[in-house]
Amino acid sequence: MVIAVDADGGDYFPKNPVEGSLQALQEDVSLKIMLVGPRELITKELEKHNYDPERLQVVDAPEIIGMEESPASAVRDKRSSSIVVGLTLHKERKCDAFLSAGNTGALLAASTVILGRLKGVLRPTIASYYPTLKGFRLLVDAGANLEMKPDQAVQFAKMGQVFCEVLMGIKNPTVGLLNVGEEEEKGTEVMKEIHEALKAVDGFIGNIEGRDIFPAKSDVFISDGVVGNILLKFGESIPAALKQMVKGAAKNGIMAKISLLAARKILKTSLSPFNYENVGGIPFLGVNGVSMVGHGGSSALAIKNMIKSAVSCVENNINGKIVASLN
Amino acid sequence: MVIAVDADGGDYFPKNPVEGSLQALQEDVSLKIMLVGPRELITKELEKHNYDPERLQVVDAPEIIGMEESPASAVRDKRSSSIVVGLTLHKERKCDAFLSAGNTGALLAASTVILGRLKGVLRPTIASYYPTLKGFRLLVDAGANLEMKPDQAVQFAKMGQVFCEVLMGIKNPTVGLLNVGEEEEKGTEVMKEIHEALKAVDGFIGNIEGRDIFPAKSDVFISDGVVGNILLKFGESIPAALKQMVKGAAKNGIMAKISLLAARKILKTSLSPFNYENVGGIPFLGVNGVSMVGHGGSSALAIKNMIKSAVSCVENNINGKIVASLN
Repeated sequence: MVIAVDADGGDYFPKNPVEGSLQALQEDVSLKIMLVGPRELITKELEKHNYDPERLQVVDAPEIIGMEESPASAVRDKRSSSIVVGLTLHKERKCDAFLSAGNTGALLAASTVILGRLKGVLRPTIASYYPTLKGFRLLVDAGANLEMKPDQAVQFAKMGQVFCEVLMGIKNPTVGLLNVGEEEEKGTEVMKEIHEALKAVDGFIGNIEGRDIFPAKSDVFISDGVVGNILLKFGESIPAALKQMVKGAAKNGIMAKISLLAARKILKTSLSPFNYENVGGIPFLGVNGVSMVGHGGSSALAIKNMIKSAVSCVENNINGKIVASLN
Repeated sequence: MVIAVDADGGDYFPKNPVEGSLQALQEDVSLKIMLVGPRELITKELEKHNYDPERLQVVDAPEIIGMEESPASAVRDKRSSSIVVGLTLHKERKCDAFLSAGNTGALLAASTVILGRLKGVLRPTIASYYPTLKGFRLLVDAGANLEMKPDQAVQFAKMGQVFCEVLMGIKNPTVGLLNVGEEEEKGTEVMKEIHEALKAVDGFIGNIEGRDIFPAKSDVFISDGVVGNILLKFGESIPAALKQMVKGAAKNGIMAKISLLAARKILKTSLSPFNYENVGGIPFLGVNGVSMVGHGGSSALAIKNMIKSAVSCVENNINGKIVASLN
C-alpha cells in the first residue's frame, strides 16, 4: 500500500502533511508514503524527525497552486505542481491513492482530467461528512456540481450510499432529497424531476427539509452544489459560533465563572463527535482512482486520518463497488 | 390602529392567537383587535378571559385552511376562511394589518391576490429573521420565490434594507449574496448575473459564504427561496439539537450532573437572543398592505410580538418607504 500525500496543500504545509504522514507510518507498518511537493521544503521539515527512508519517499514538485487559484488554469499551466505530479503518479499506478488539503477545485479538475471517470459515471462529485445527532452523515454534492440533473442525482445518491456502507459503516443507507417541503410536489421543476428519478434508488425516503438534517432523517442528503456548499460552510461555523455565544452569556461573579467553565467543557464534549479531524477528508466519488481532499486547515491528526481513510477506500475496493452499483 | 388576527392559524388555535391578542390589548391601550375565525371556537376561548368588548371584535370565518393544504386552491375555494376574510377586511381598510400563524403559502397567495403588489414591485417576497452573533439579521427570500431573477434580487435586497432600517433598527444595512465562494465569478450563471445586478444596490458587499452567516458579514442575506428555506429550517433546528447534544454528553456522578445543569443554563442564556418569539413574525414584503406571518408553533408571546411588529410596520409606513426605495 503506497499513499501519495500532497506536502504542499493546505494552510500549514509542509508541517502538517509531513507530521500526519509520519504518524500514519508509525500506526500502519505495512504502509509506504510518497510526499509530493517542493523537495527542499519537505527535506527541511523531515530533518526534524526520525523516520525510515525505505518507507518514505520524497517526490519533487516545485510549483505551488494557491488556495484561490483558478482550478482549470492551475492544472493546465502548473504541470510540476504537487497535485498534477501526485495524480500522475497515481494514474501510472506508482501509488494506490493521492490525497491533499489543497485547492479543492484544482484537485477535482485535475482528478477528473488525469484519472478520468469510472465506467458509467456522468459526473464525479464531492461528498462531505455532515455532523448530525447520530454522528456523521453524508452530504452530496458539497460544491462540485452547482447544478444537478436528475440522472446525475441518481448517481450521486448511489455513490453516496456506497461510501456510507464502505467507509462509514452504515448498513443499507437511506437517501433524502433536500427540499423546501416534504411533499412530492415541492420545489423547482428540476427538483421535482430529481425526486421522480430518485424513486429508482433503493433506500430513497423522499424529500427532507432543513430541520431533518440534525436528526439525520436520512443517511445521504442529496442537494445541488450550491445548497450543499452553503450548508457545509455554515455547519462548519457552528462550533466556533457556539463558543462565542457561550462566552457572551458569561456574567460576573465566581459562581457564574464556574458555570461557564463547566458549560464549555460539556459543550466541547458534546461537539467532539463532529470534529472533522477524526475523518480527515473525503474522496471524489466517480473518478477512476482514489483521490481525497481535506480541509484547508487540516491538522497533522486530520492528515493521518485522511491517509487511513484512503487506505480503507483502496482495501475495500470502493470504486469496484461504485461501478457495480451504477451498472 | 386596528389589527386583524387570524384566530384560526397555527398549531395552537384559537388559544394562542386569542391570548396573544389579549396581551397586546393590555400593553397598548390605543389598539383594537379583530379576531377572525370560527366564531364559536373564539367565543368559547374568550369566555376564559376578561376583556373590553369595545376593543375586541370577533369576525366569523368558519372555514379552516389546513397547514398542508395547497395554497392556490385553498384561497380560491375557501372564501370564508380566516385568511380570505381577514385580508379582505384589510383590503377594504377596515383594519390596518392582518397577521396569521397559519399556512404560509396560502397567506402569501391570498395576500398577493387580494391586496395586490405595491407600485413597481415585480414579486412579493418572504423575509425571515436569522440568528447571528450580532443578533437577528434578515434572510431574503425564505421560500416564496424558489427561483430568483436578477431584477427581483435587486428588489428583494432593497425591500430587505427598508425592513432592517424600519423594524430592526439597523442603520445603512449592508447586503450580501449567499454563494459558494467570495469571488465575483463564483456560482451558477444566474448567480453571476444576480451579483452583477446587485452592484446597483447601495450597501452591497458582494458574495458571502455559509460561514459568514453567524458572524453577520452582511445585514441582509440574499438567496433564492430554496437555499433560504433550507437554511431557515436548519437554523431553527439548532437550539433543540444542541440541547440533545449536551444531554448526550452527560456522564454519571454528582459533579457531572452539576456541570450539566450549569451548561444547560448557560446554553439557554446564550441562545435566548435567537428566540423567534421575541420577534413573532415577518411581513410579506412588496404586497399592498401589511400582512404578516408567524411560525406555525407560535406561542401567545409570539403572537403578541407579531401584533406589535405589525403596528410598527403601519406606524413607520414601511410600504411608503419600500415604494420610495424602488422607484
